[in-house]
Amino acid sequence: MTHKFDVLGIGNAIVDVLVNVEDNFLTRNDIPKGSMQLVDEETSEKLYAKLGAAIECSGGSAANTIAGLASLGSKTAYMGKIKDDQLGAVFDHDISSLGITFPTAKDQSGVSTARCLVMVSPDAERTMCTYLGACVNLTEQDIDPEIVASSAVTYMEGYLWDPEQAKAAFRKAMSLAHNAGRKTSLSLSDSFCVGRHKQEFLQLAEHEIDILFANEDELLMLYDTQDMSVALKAVQQHCEVAAITRGAKGCTIVSANDIIDIGGCKVDNLVDTTGAGDLFAAGFLHGYSRNLDLGTCGQMGNLVASEVITHMGARPDVNLKQFLVDNL
Amino acid sequence: MTHKFDVLGIGNAIVDVLVNVEDNFLTRNDIPKGSMQLVDEETSEKLYAKLGAAIECSGGSAANTIAGLASLGSKTAYMGKIKDDQLGAVFDHDISSLGITFPTAKDQSGVSTARCLVMVSPDAERTMCTYLGACVNLTEQDIDPEIVASSAVTYMEGYLWDPEQAKAAFRKAMSLAHNAGRKTSLSLSDSFCVGRHKQEFLQLAEHEIDILFANEDELLMLYDTQDMSVALKAVQQHCEVAAITRGAKGCTIVSANDIIDIGGCKVDNLVDTTGAGDLFAAGFLHGYSRNLDLGTCGQMGNLVASEVITHMGARPDVNLKQFLVDNL
Repeated sequence: MTHKFDVLGIGNAIVDVLVNVEDNFLTRNDIPKGSMQLVDEETSEKLYAKLGAAIECSGGSAANTIAGLASLGSKTAYMGKIKDDQLGAVFDHDISSLGITFPTAKDQSGVSTARCLVMVSPDAERTMCTYLGACVNLTEQDIDPEIVASSAVTYMEGYLWDPEQAKAAFRKAMSLAHNAGRKTSLSLSDSFCVGRHKQEFLQLAEHEIDILFANEDELLMLYDTQDMSVALKAVQQHCEVAAITRGAKGCTIVSANDIIDIGGCKVDNLVDTTGAGDLFAAGFLHGYSRNLDLGTCGQMGNLVASEVITHMGARPDVNLKQFLVDNL
Repeated sequence: MTHKFDVLGIGNAIVDVLVNVEDNFLTRNDIPKGSMQLVDEETSEKLYAKLGAAIECSGGSAANTIAGLASLGSKTAYMGKIKDDQLGAVFDHDISSLGITFPTAKDQSGVSTARCLVMVSPDAERTMCTYLGACVNLTEQDIDPEIVASSAVTYMEGYLWDPEQAKAAFRKAMSLAHNAGRKTSLSLSDSFCVGRHKQEFLQLAEHEIDILFANEDELLMLYDTQDMSVALKAVQQHCEVAAITRGAKGCTIVSANDIIDIGGCKVDNLVDTTGAGDLFAAGFLHGYSRNLDLGTCGQMGNLVASEVITHMGARPDVNLKQFLVDNL
């Protein structure tokens, strides 16, 4: 079955505001290190006012993954809601400049394009406060059936479960994909997000999702266990493939017959871990869509993730196609 | 005579859009490498659409210098015109977060906050296309006499000669500073800018400016010579102090009795030369405002410039006060 797009991504379309902080800034402001929390516009503005000079760049978990895939040479599309404002123009430009098909209509009025304050600690760990803005206006109407049906994989982020209407959009896309005989993929996003939506995510994993992405914390949270071997066996019963990232240790790839560990890449200059999981998914799915064996897919995920953590921001800094040629 | 501010900066308030390009992109688009050219909004948009994914951060030559001075611990103020839009909010935040007094009223309507497309070549050289936007609305009315009179040095960029009304603002500030017995300082900005305004810049250097900043090309262009020793002797007759940057070779400091060369700092990881001259001025003026000898001021300029060229963007990535302690 031919397809037009290797991967379609659907997610919260967000511009990141990146700023270095000391850990005691997080403590003083009662923000759990490593978390992603949702904040309203006023809280976002107040926190921003306390933060130092920042840089802005496009973000959004699934959007980062799709940007990585496009840079690797995959054929990609993306759906996510922005407003027609200056930050929306930045997001739109960065997606479109990579040749990604981006059909979602922009809001002409209402709340502004989403912003995520990404606070990077000296140890490169990132802590995020997200104002969802226009993301709350992504609805079923934004899911273009033709694009879903012509995408080999539809990849969605767990964060889509946060804006109320986006769940329906997620379910519609999932259903369209399966009806067209395509694969569905979910990233669990973060353990706090899994905590908020555990029952629904469990049902998705059990019945709807073919390829699951998670880190260890998220998988343990999903299966309510402290034992990774229990969680790995559980997800093996649920999903066709699960790719579990383990930070510097690499990843574990779970399929019907196998659970294999793949060691991580050595990184000398760790700067900002933002986007590590997103870019792992990009590398993995790029291999997957080329029918490479799952071990190679995992290696490609590790490698692509190792690039994004050497600089500020969650989008690749180099042409990943060339990077892969030079490093794999 | 006591002062409230060590340095007041006045300049074009700009948000930078930073993007990596190959040199042949510049050739194809007829853009001289290393230049700063002014473009209208339509041309800016068309060029942006051709460029790859970018990062946004606050820029503006004098604003970069003032940000550097604030990070070094100087007492600073800045005047420049932005619109009350999202990119204006980014600029405002980044200035204010450093504790810089920023009294300029924002435009509530009209053209948007200025943007500079900064195209960074593989050799770290930057080429700029600037859409002046709201900068054209900086007028004499924006020059707060009390702030000028209470600033030990008023530092202005040559680029202010591009928006028509800003010249009058520049002249007003210069006159207010001298009437209060303060020092005036000018950065020649770039050689193309000197080419546009040579006669007026010569008059400024001869009659109005106490401390001149330039690189070698700009100084040669100003004095219409290919011989640096001729240019250095000419500027020695005109300005109390001239600080001439020479790229990797360091700088030459000219005063009434001396012309001294100060070797540059070794930089292993050159990434983006944007802001090198601006941050040199920050380091130099920080020393100058503390009455350090001119040789030390030059060393501080070299050192601070060496930090900003190791990463993308024209604002310091680290606390410069600490950086100076660790490296001087």
